[in-house]
Amino acid sequence: MSSPNKSQMVKPRLPRGFADRGPADIAATDAMLAAIRETFELYGFEAVETPFVEYTEALGKFLPDQDRPNEGVFSFQDDDESWLSLRYDLTAPLARYVAEHFDALPKPYRSYRCGWVFRNEKPGPGRFRQFMQFDADTVGSPGVAADAEAAMMLADTLERVGIARGDYVVRVNNRKVLDGVLEAIGLAGEENAARRLIVLRAIDKLDKVGPEGVAALLGPGRMDPSGDFTKGAGLAPEDIERVLAFTSAQAEHAGLTLINLREVVGTSARGAEGVEELATIAQLVGAAGYGDGRVVIDPSVVRGLEYYTGPVYEAELTFRVKDEDGRPVRFGSVAGGGRYDGLVARFRGEPVPATGFSIGVSRLLAALKALGQVREDAARGPVVVLVMDRDHVAHYQSMVAALRAAGIRAEMYMGGAGMKAQMKYADRRRAPCVVIQGSNEREAGEIQIKDLVEGAKAAAAIAGHEEWKAARPAQFSAPESELVERVREVLARH
Amino acid sequence: MSSPNKSQMVKPRLPRGFADRGPADIAATDAMLAAIRETFELYGFEAVETPFVEYTEALGKFLPDQDRPNEGVFSFQDDDESWLSLRYDLTAPLARYVAEHFDALPKPYRSYRCGWVFRNEKPGPGRFRQFMQFDADTVGSPGVAADAEAAMMLADTLERVGIARGDYVVRVNNRKVLDGVLEAIGLAGEENAARRLIVLRAIDKLDKVGPEGVAALLGPGRMDPSGDFTKGAGLAPEDIERVLAFTSAQAEHAGLTLINLREVVGTSARGAEGVEELATIAQLVGAAGYGDGRVVIDPSVVRGLEYYTGPVYEAELTFRVKDEDGRPVRFGSVAGGGRYDGLVARFRGEPVPATGFSIGVSRLLAALKALGQVREDAARGPVVVLVMDRDHVAHYQSMVAALRAAGIRAEMYMGGAGMKAQMKYADRRRAPCVVIQGSNEREAGEIQIKDLVEGAKAAAAIAGHEEWKAARPAQFSAPESELVERVREVLARH
Repeated sequence: MSSPNKSQMVKPRLPRGFADRGPADIAATDAMLAAIRETFELYGFEAVETPFVEYTEALGKFLPDQDRPNEGVFSFQDDDESWLSLRYDLTAPLARYVAEHFDALPKPYRSYRCGWVFRNEKPGPGRFRQFMQFDADTVGSPGVAADAEAAMMLADTLERVGIARGDYVVRVNNRKVLDGVLEAIGLAGEENAARRLIVLRAIDKLDKVGPEGVAALLGPGRMDPSGDFTKGAGLAPEDIERVLAFTSAQAEHAGLTLINLREVVGTSARGAEGVEELATIAQLVGAAGYGDGRVVIDPSVVRGLEYYTGPVYEAELTFRVKDEDGRPVRFGSVAGGGRYDGLVARFRGEPVPATGFSIGVSRLLAALKALGQVREDAARGPVVVLVMDRDHVAHYQSMVAALRAAGIRAEMYMGGAGMKAQMKYADRRRAPCVVIQGSNEREAGEIQIKDLVEGAKAAAAIAGHEEWKAARPAQFSAPESELVERVREVLARH
Repeated sequence: MSSPNKSQMVKPRLPRGFADRGPADIAATDAMLAAIRETFELYGFEAVETPFVEYTEALGKFLPDQDRPNEGVFSFQDDDESWLSLRYDLTAPLARYVAEHFDALPKPYRSYRCGWVFRNEKPGPGRFRQFMQFDADTVGSPGVAADAEAAMMLADTLERVGIARGDYVVRVNNRKVLDGVLEAIGLAGEENAARRLIVLRAIDKLDKVGPEGVAALLGPGRMDPSGDFTKGAGLAPEDIERVLAFTSAQAEHAGLTLINLREVVGTSARGAEGVEELATIAQLVGAAGYGDGRVVIDPSVVRGLEYYTGPVYEAELTFRVKDEDGRPVRFGSVAGGGRYDGLVARFRGEPVPATGFSIGVSRLLAALKALGQVREDAARGPVVVLVMDRDHVAHYQSMVAALRAAGIRAEMYMGGAGMKAQMKYADRRRAPCVVIQGSNEREAGEIQIKDLVEGAKAAAAIAGHEEWKAARPAQFSAPESELVERVREVLARH
């Protein structure tokens, strides 16, 4: 194949919002995923996976039109004109899966899945168009015991991956309570769906804009520091007050929080039902010992998604990190979920109770990195057998084969370059040592082993280049017959 | 949320060519992938992963047009009108990755990656539009030692996952030899590219249509048994003979094969170069002990892809399975690859030597299943604590928590149904045992443990229902304080 000329060349680059992953990142992620999986397994959940592509209508909510790729999701048309989409979360595909295999599945159906999801949105720092979620769901369980369990499992999961107790809190709220508040301020009914969503989104911003900001968003609207204006929900002052009384209902003890909430929902039957569900969750959590601050009732949690129908929960990391401007801020949310009794119903025409949550995998990994729990560099590389004499490649290869047969990660240098490039290669691969055999050594039946870890330490201690060359620290000869044994000794040192 | 009426219901189904994966399949695949990864690591390769979406032009070859989704790949337009595609293999993205990070990477760059790829093609039995590949590549290594190593690593990988020596063969050929043959019959040069491709595809069908079929495809064309006619390459009889002499050049020993090939390539310098490369590979493979039938020189292997520029290799499983009509056939190819010195050049304008292969993950798993090396059923499920009394859910929960704290996979029944449904649930989850505590047991501080594995055996042995009820085999009482200990005893039995 002839080389293309420069004008035909393609620029090697990724679309924005997509990223490659190197060995250190892959290893750290895999270790964390294994810890999550172990926790979910311990709780009795079993693995299931759906494909990346679904019928767009099965994912719901997002409807493509002919003219442009639909908002938020990546979509394309199939041969038969039907629209397909890349999944944007793991919950919608699970609902399709459960509906499709309903009769064959054990009920309740308790499953977990980890996978990449895609959002056709504007990317930003730490905001990707492809990212990984790790979900667990219980489908077919009407009682809030399943929600309480989900909250406790989230707590156990965070500890298992390495977040210390006290560095996180799982907050639990209930959409029914919010519905009760909305009913009390006259926002019930299908005709108020749009305004309810505005209220929901306003409350969801509590962390970012504070109570005054939320009050503005619930009322006439809010101008942010950059001058952008967000239209408000247009609520009356007393209604705004009631919503804020709801979001600030959390008290020292769950019992007091529940008393506050009973007051806020007033005469709403749905609101009262929600408060009683929270009371049951608080009791279950307390009985299991998680009432020590690991799982708390907190009415300020609403979760943005409209499809939640009951309890919602969110795991927040409470330790502080520096934000972009160097100010200390709480790390924030790494996982969340809730009850979504209506999702499977889209397919079956009858409500199917379900509850579950998603962990944001890269967010959680970022947290572990912030806590210094992840090595940022790649692990040690293979032992490298240098090629000193191209006519004896088969012999070097047999050395490598001997090392591998002993379970030692090893490779023969495969490039076309000389000694200096080979040593540079071994360094970059973080090789623990190299094996050298030139013609002199070969005739003597010997090898040289150079310990690169010791060598680097010695080099740091020795000032002059000449002194270095004279001493050749961390390099020694050995009979070739002792190759495996002596390499093993070097590996054991580090 | 109100239930939708039937007319609004969405049918729960997947687009054709996509599939869900259950726990047994996921567990079997993960175990196999771990074995592959261990082998690649032992050889010194390191992990890298690219995203699922690339610029269509970066993937090359497939160019979308405005009117319809482009042939073979799933594509969609980004906000800025540029075309994006789902990757259709892991090699094209690797070439983009290497070109993009060329200066930062060690050279040679030895990496592996496992991931899903997508083909927008007509699906069929065992043919999916989303499937998994596991690749390893050495980039920046001009010598055929890297190709020889890839072939040997393929052999080691197959053995590591559970394919016995003798049940597989890794065949090696060289595109340069084929080029030499094509040159010898006057098909060199850019103007003959289309005819060369027809010849390539004809040879690739050798397994399916035999030498007569290939001869027809090289000549006037071939009518298959269903009556479909494939146009041929239109070669003259003596040229057809030379191509067939090439594909049938394999002899008892590599040395004889090489002698045959030297004859077939005639005076073509490129052909001679290819034969010498094969001679070097045979020597390296022999010196490392893989010349015992694990890795063989076999000129019948061509590999369909046009981008190969040197050695090509393919792993074939040689044991027999029944085909759709019940006839015994060789299992066939599970992995293959070769040297592709031109792929990175698309981005860099200079050739970058590279060689590597892909393992078809589901093909290889199917092979392990055919060999009886994979359990088709899911593993044992969790211990299930039944809910006999809804008022004491918190107490059942504390039992589950105690089991989990002891590292025992356990769950409390989360459904809303009675005793019979709970036992059915435990059976379907393949629970090893259930823990039962009704009001009588609770008052006595006791629990009942029912061993479902023993129970199933006993049920098979006992004829009558009454006898069964009287005996209640494999069920015993224990003090509640011994919950963990006694459950552990039951688990230890199985």
